[in-house]
Amino acid sequence: MDWLKFFRGEKKTSAQTAKERLMLAVAYQRSGQANGPSYLPRLREELLGVVRKYIQVPDDAVQFSVQREDGLEVLELNITLPDQ
Amino acid sequence: MDWLKFFRGEKKTSAQTAKERLMLAVAYQRSGQANGPSYLPRLREELLGVVRKYIQVPDDAVQFSVQREDGLEVLELNITLPDQ
Repeated sequence: MDWLKFFRGEKKTSAQTAKERLMLAVAYQRSGQANGPSYLPRLREELLGVVRKYIQVPDDAVQFSVQREDGLEVLELNITLPDQ
Repeated sequence: MDWLKFFRGEKKTSAQTAKERLMLAVAYQRSGQANGPSYLPRLREELLGVVRKYIQVPDDAVQFSVQREDGLEVLELNITLPDQ
């Protein structure tokens, strides 16, 4: 999976270019008619909880999205980090 | 960020096609000469710990990789889930 190429391919605003960013993606690929493991929502909540614990940023520094298409569901978090 | 297109674009073996999968990616984009936040290794460890808590699979069901290129570092976990 060529993540380097993928993340580089993002359109950047001038603000984003100058900032550090952290991106988290959780993707679930199901087979057939399965609805996915029952723990999936809790697992995602806990992953987000870990990120929140380490990174305190204002709400407008966080972009959150869910993408769905038959069989594939992707939860994405994109955080612009504060200056160190 | 078109994650759907991205994850779909992966080459699949016949075994992977028939199985459910969970994928986790943590990407860090730095600016200039910064080495990244000091909490980054601990944050990643905790994220992996959360995944391990929910998903018990044999070692050969987990693919783990780190990709680096100047300014961008991506940690990826790809898990083939057991049949439900």
